[in-house]
Amino acid sequence: MENGAKRWGFQGKQGLDAASATNVRGYFNLLMGNINQDNSSVVVPLGHGDPSHFPSFRTTPAAEDAIVDALRSAKHNCYATTVDYLNRDLSYKLTPDDVYLTIGCNQAIEVVTAVLSRPGANIFLPRPGYPHYEPWCAYNHLEMRHYDLLPEKGLEVDVDAVETLADENTAAMVIINPGNPCWNVCSYEHLNKIAETARKLGILVIADEAYDNIAFGSTPYVPMRVFGLTVPILTLGSISKRWVVPGWRFGWLVTSDPDGILQKSGVINSIAGFLNISSDPATFIQAAIPQILENTKEDFFSKIISTLRECADICYNRIEEIPSLTCPKKPEGSMFVMVKLNLSMLEDINDDVDFCLKLAKEESVIILPGIAMELKNWLRVTFAIEPSLLQEGLARVKAFCQRHAKKQ
Amino acid sequence: MENGAKRWGFQGKQGLDAASATNVRGYFNLLMGNINQDNSSVVVPLGHGDPSHFPSFRTTPAAEDAIVDALRSAKHNCYATTVDYLNRDLSYKLTPDDVYLTIGCNQAIEVVTAVLSRPGANIFLPRPGYPHYEPWCAYNHLEMRHYDLLPEKGLEVDVDAVETLADENTAAMVIINPGNPCWNVCSYEHLNKIAETARKLGILVIADEAYDNIAFGSTPYVPMRVFGLTVPILTLGSISKRWVVPGWRFGWLVTSDPDGILQKSGVINSIAGFLNISSDPATFIQAAIPQILENTKEDFFSKIISTLRECADICYNRIEEIPSLTCPKKPEGSMFVMVKLNLSMLEDINDDVDFCLKLAKEESVIILPGIAMELKNWLRVTFAIEPSLLQEGLARVKAFCQRHAKKQ
Repeated sequence: MENGAKRWGFQGKQGLDAASATNVRGYFNLLMGNINQDNSSVVVPLGHGDPSHFPSFRTTPAAEDAIVDALRSAKHNCYATTVDYLNRDLSYKLTPDDVYLTIGCNQAIEVVTAVLSRPGANIFLPRPGYPHYEPWCAYNHLEMRHYDLLPEKGLEVDVDAVETLADENTAAMVIINPGNPCWNVCSYEHLNKIAETARKLGILVIADEAYDNIAFGSTPYVPMRVFGLTVPILTLGSISKRWVVPGWRFGWLVTSDPDGILQKSGVINSIAGFLNISSDPATFIQAAIPQILENTKEDFFSKIISTLRECADICYNRIEEIPSLTCPKKPEGSMFVMVKLNLSMLEDINDDVDFCLKLAKEESVIILPGIAMELKNWLRVTFAIEPSLLQEGLARVKAFCQRHAKKQ
Repeated sequence: MENGAKRWGFQGKQGLDAASATNVRGYFNLLMGNINQDNSSVVVPLGHGDPSHFPSFRTTPAAEDAIVDALRSAKHNCYATTVDYLNRDLSYKLTPDDVYLTIGCNQAIEVVTAVLSRPGANIFLPRPGYPHYEPWCAYNHLEMRHYDLLPEKGLEVDVDAVETLADENTAAMVIINPGNPCWNVCSYEHLNKIAETARKLGILVIADEAYDNIAFGSTPYVPMRVFGLTVPILTLGSISKRWVVPGWRFGWLVTSDPDGILQKSGVINSIAGFLNISSDPATFIQAAIPQILENTKEDFFSKIISTLRECADICYNRIEEIPSLTCPKKPEGSMFVMVKLNLSMLEDINDDVDFCLKLAKEESVIILPGIAMELKNWLRVTFAIEPSLLQEGLARVKAFCQRHAKKQ
């Protein structure tokens, strides 16, 4: 009986590997594998939104101090302050029972898709969107229906299309605001319209606010949960972006349910049940949260916002100089911009994936292909890196595009 | 259209709340709710295995220092050292590709049950066992088949029964060693027999070694993965118990697959795919691991082991003094002991849950009912608390049993 020949009674679950192959991390790994190791220039990472390693984006010492204090002293009481932080601007009040701590926003996505999963249920996702929703929906057998963000309308939700997509099995719609991978920030009026539509359709709103408060254009950031009296809302948030600490893996899932609709439908019990068997964030990180929220100065936030505004300007202006790339609008929020690829002006580039693979190989610049976000022949560029390196990376993108430009 | 009357198109997933209600955390919450708030005596927590708050179990400063250093310096390179740690005593060699970092052992359980899930598949779980497996198996639609640990044979696996339980849909068997909630440590010979049996049945072994090296009796701890040439093994481990830092949420899933069987069956790809979409441990905790592994002195481990041995002795001796409780054998490992409840000697106690609820109310002592581990009318007592508090708690258990003793 050889090991190789033996019949073993197990196999890997079909689809788990396929699901993840199409996500951001999958493409990121593919592109990193295409970097030419003989090229001595530094790799410019415009592909993913983690600026935490750059000096201009170093988190506040107050946050680091809070972690050290919590680790050394083992105090544990974080709920009250988190609720205060989330209660700002609300016409109803959240309580500690409405706040569930999660391992970053990602675990919150796992939880909401697990909780809403039932035979035949469907969910609305934005296109372009954050590509962690698709694998979790697939894993939890939630049918995905994509609605478009309209470039000609400043990437507003196509609300009319949402109404025609809905049927009696629609459970929820996901709104990502500020946008990821898009650069838009939704206005109060637009969010209100979304809330009214969701109410009319009888679906809940999943408000992905991973980039909460990361808004540097003319539209102020408004949390979706201010419309909690209109429609039940699950808010997903984290300290990852505002404090520039994605590696700390601390987030939350907040239920806005002043009318008890989520309670009655069993959604609250399912969330609690799922988190009861799931892993928690590290306890000393939980314990540090009150101190982080209390001790972070407004200065820190405004410095980060002003650096992001500077980076967004650089990104928009440099891309405007490249004929084969189009940036529809100057970014107003988040850390990304979607850039349209004008393939007709390029000679030997087949599509967005081909563009990104060749760019990685020839210029050691990582940019994510739009197909990872269901937007073929677009590119997702993060501008949240050190401004000088951003200039360098975009200069290389320009040189690449010139070299591959179709001869007139 | 009233909020209350509106038809909403979503509902919580059935079973998520039910699954978790039967687990340890569920019982723990139930018992804590039964504590009499008017009772001024300190609550003695003999119900769960987290001694990290007690002075005798404080982790090594080397581990805390490692976290602080990683946080302050943002170095990130932890794989090589972890592999060295796991490679000890192996006749084949693990590589960094065999080690997946997880958010404690709990996420590793989520991963293995997700990966092995397919229509009709079944899995063997020990009875008594660690009750996190059951909700994850239920969630992932893995049929659970329980095999017994034999009290009369020092809690060895009932290997003959395992053979009769197996069919062509059996994917894996879970071995928890050192035992949880049992106090046994499996011998080399017994583990070898288990590996041979698994090989014969064509199933993989999931070796839950959360309590690795927590052995203080006559049988030395042997990692299951030394039998990796016999049968494919997935080892689940963490720093939670050996370093007494369960709140740090850092663990691993290790694939022992020298013959490439897991690779061929798709299990490896599924694990990688699932972790690709899942949350990671906090990066600065990952980064601290090499320093934690390198800088922890043998002194620290031997002090913890000797404290646990002292506590196990106290626990066994005190319980021997109580006629209505039986502790079959002195604990040799882990942090728990299962104690048999002799109901016939008690007057007004219906079962283990009733015992624990009344004990919590009358004596402010928390002990977990055996039913949480599929062992009705047993109790799970943790002895891993400060020795003086353990004495106090067991004195109260004795007083409680005397008060409720059946009159002769």
